Amino acid sequence: MKQVMNRRQFIKALGVAAGAIALPGCVSSNQSSTSEVSVKKPNFVIIFADDLGYGDLGCFGHPTIRTPNLDRMAAEGQKWTNFYVGASVCTPSRAALLTGRLPIRSGMCSDKRRVLFPDSASGLPAREVTLAEGLKTVGYTTGCIGKWHLGHLPSYLPTHNGFDSYFGIPYSNDMDKVGGQGRKAFSEQKIEYWNVPLMRDEEIIERPADQNTITKRYTEEAVKFIQKNKSEPFFLYLAHNLPHVPLFVSKNFKDKSLRGLYGDVVEEIDWGVGQIFDTLRREGLAENTFVVFTSDNGPWLTFNELGGSAGLLREGKGCTFEGGMREPCIMWWPGKIQPGVVNDMGATMDVYTTILTLAGAEVPSDRVVDGLDISPALFGTGPSPRQVVYYYRGAKLYAIRKGPYKAHFFTRSAYGRDEEVRHNPPLLYHLGRDPSEKYDISKDHPEVLADIQKEVALHLANLTPGEDQLAKRILKK
Amino acid sequence: MKQVMNRRQFIKALGVAAGAIALPGCVSSNQSSTSEVSVKKPNFVIIFADDLGYGDLGCFGHPTIRTPNLDRMAAEGQKWTNFYVGASVCTPSRAALLTGRLPIRSGMCSDKRRVLFPDSASGLPAREVTLAEGLKTVGYTTGCIGKWHLGHLPSYLPTHNGFDSYFGIPYSNDMDKVGGQGRKAFSEQKIEYWNVPLMRDEEIIERPADQNTITKRYTEEAVKFIQKNKSEPFFLYLAHNLPHVPLFVSKNFKDKSLRGLYGDVVEEIDWGVGQIFDTLRREGLAENTFVVFTSDNGPWLTFNELGGSAGLLREGKGCTFEGGMREPCIMWWPGKIQPGVVNDMGATMDVYTTILTLAGAEVPSDRVVDGLDISPALFGTGPSPRQVVYYYRGAKLYAIRKGPYKAHFFTRSAYGRDEEVRHNPPLLYHLGRDPSEKYDISKDHPEVLADIQKEVALHLANLTPGEDQLAKRILKK
Repeated sequence: MKQVMNRRQFIKALGVAAGAIALPGCVSSNQSSTSEVSVKKPNFVIIFADDLGYGDLGCFGHPTIRTPNLDRMAAEGQKWTNFYVGASVCTPSRAALLTGRLPIRSGMCSDKRRVLFPDSASGLPAREVTLAEGLKTVGYTTGCIGKWHLGHLPSYLPTHNGFDSYFGIPYSNDMDKVGGQGRKAFSEQKIEYWNVPLMRDEEIIERPADQNTITKRYTEEAVKFIQKNKSEPFFLYLAHNLPHVPLFVSKNFKDKSLRGLYGDVVEEIDWGVGQIFDTLRREGLAENTFVVFTSDNGPWLTFNELGGSAGLLREGKGCTFEGGMREPCIMWWPGKIQPGVVNDMGATMDVYTTILTLAGAEVPSDRVVDGLDISPALFGTGPSPRQVVYYYRGAKLYAIRKGPYKAHFFTRSAYGRDEEVRHNPPLLYHLGRDPSEKYDISKDHPEVLADIQKEVALHLANLTPGEDQLAKRILKK
Repeated sequence: MKQVMNRRQFIKALGVAAGAIALPGCVSSNQSSTSEVSVKKPNFVIIFADDLGYGDLGCFGHPTIRTPNLDRMAAEGQKWTNFYVGASVCTPSRAALLTGRLPIRSGMCSDKRRVLFPDSASGLPAREVTLAEGLKTVGYTTGCIGKWHLGHLPSYLPTHNGFDSYFGIPYSNDMDKVGGQGRKAFSEQKIEYWNVPLMRDEEIIERPADQNTITKRYTEEAVKFIQKNKSEPFFLYLAHNLPHVPLFVSKNFKDKSLRGLYGDVVEEIDWGVGQIFDTLRREGLAENTFVVFTSDNGPWLTFNELGGSAGLLREGKGCTFEGGMREPCIMWWPGKIQPGVVNDMGATMDVYTTILTLAGAEVPSDRVVDGLDISPALFGTGPSPRQVVYYYRGAKLYAIRKGPYKAHFFTRSAYGRDEEVRHNPPLLYHLGRDPSEKYDISKDHPEVLADIQKEVALHLANLTPGEDQLAKRILKK
């Protein structure tokens, strides 16, 4: 606790004013000069969906979910088709985004419990430097709206992790289930089946949260945040609780989608994205705001029609096949980002490093940061530097991608009853030619496997796992 | 034979000059008047790929195949996400497109042979009125480039079916296999393994056709056709032989795609699309040319990496699941078509009826035409009129879609060794909520099944199957 408060005070004490920064790489394509240009600090908005699958947006190929605002975002910006999260379930994935580090380093993954639960006693360790904390050091106003899931006890809340304000449900919307309904609780949209709290900063203001209006209210909060802070450089982290089951949607979107309730929910999120862009344009902020849209992990397939789709990718949430960890990702910054489709690899951890770099903030140098600066790919000056992706399940390395090749040392289906299977030699897939992970080519490419084994050995040799935070529970009296 | 020649002579004898036509529905959105406007007749271009799957374009969600020209076409035009072909294999699908009729009516489907082969003795019956023949009656110059596959004996060739000119391989590029190589013939790109002919009008000009350059040459022919006929109203039917296996690609595209050889081939086709648009723009024809891009059937999945992907749709070529018969479809006509995503249903047969209507030509009234005029959806004046899709396998009705519901009376995998399975009650899927056909809901919706059964009874009561043309073989001496 002491450490957390000291760090917060330290950031506040810095009192860095908003102002001009040197922004390398971010020159308009008309300028031939490669020298640094002095510009107003950019604003950053991250919109993070929950359990949205790779195939669930129009621009990623869904035939019946209509997402005109995200489609427009993709047309004006970049659609990333090989973009990864740090884990295939919620808590570790969010830790990766906000710390730029593999969850194994922060202790935010575990072989005992896959995510934090209402009885969890811990959260994101205070020594981690969140994206919000990094941006505070260079004068940003920071707001967190939506799902947190990095610790709901007071000292772990967003306001103790670099955010000036928080409005949202602090963990998954299917926790605090009021018992007795079984599976029915997921198919009937009744908020009283769920006792989840809605918080403003550190206070619970509504319980159960009215989830029917939650996407609408998050959107309204986001618009207000932007309007209020338009003269400051700001960072808005908008993490929707949906389309994670149980699905809820406001009246205006109920029964509107061809895709049923799941589509209703995604289309309301898409509407919300449109509201944010309208606000940015209306306030004259569009050309100085970098917006990233992605999801925390793949679709929860065991919920059938109530879950999403990973498109042509294999499997979904909870496992280390592509459907679990590759997400739809769109990056937008009119006049700055080169519009188009990016097939290079990227990761949420790279968003951390890239944003800190663009803001002129320091990327922590006293620890391993896994995020890479993907500015070259954003601004069209070169490829993404990311060449390797690690696929952890809990605290165990299940698979690794290097270039187009992915080796699976272990596989296990998402939430099935099957046991972990060890593969020796590992299964090997060429994700460029075989994005659906169908054709094992390990026998044809021993040299690739040898190279990957070296990469793994190097990774593990330099890895210091953080203390397991997810296993810690509040002792029952 | 006599009948064919007479019809050709008839069309030529008509000698209708190119000129102004009344084009209902095709008014600019700025005009409040609903009266007909007199405009120059539009040109029509249909680009038809072979075995390209629903998921194989960037704008339909493929993560590694790069199709910037088709993506741009979709952004400027309409992406149709519920667009169907008339059969899940080549010959009947092409018959449906060019006649506007279900292949069962023309006799271009069969339970004995699924397509025409080099030893076939027949082709499209002369009494069918092809799209080209219809357009000839109102003065169009018509060209066919690429794969025909509606009969390669002289009287069945494109030049006997309303096309002024023909350049292409008259059937599939995997026919006329030079024996002995087995499966190897598909993985090694050697033109000498295939003795397929390349024709100019009614002459064989090259054998074996150099398939390495075939996409390039088709494209060059298409560009020349447009340039030559720019002052006439024209109809160009460009039916690529690829990405049907065996895959071939020209040097400029070899080993360039992240998706391997299959991606190379699709990316060369995409390049060709770009060449056509460049030509239309350069010649000032863009705003008077309606271009449709689609594929004849789903991906040939049994060829693994050499075949394509149906994305999130089930199965592929050869069967009546969605992956076999729903295709990526893009429609383009700058200034005329309302840009956006169209989730309404459409079909290749509708392209027939719509184009004839737009050209001011008569849609045959002496027979059943299955195509509907989808102009309302194109021009943003209303929904597509298509509410029903019939899924035939050979000459047998396997399934039907009405609205979002699809009932399977029979199922059988594409090219597997499994037997046909009869379903009673039929399997029932909601394609809006369940586009991957995973969750049978027949037990929950007896009223939907009853309604669909009525639709089927009506359809079959009014059906007169044409004489089976595919079963006819040249007798060996």
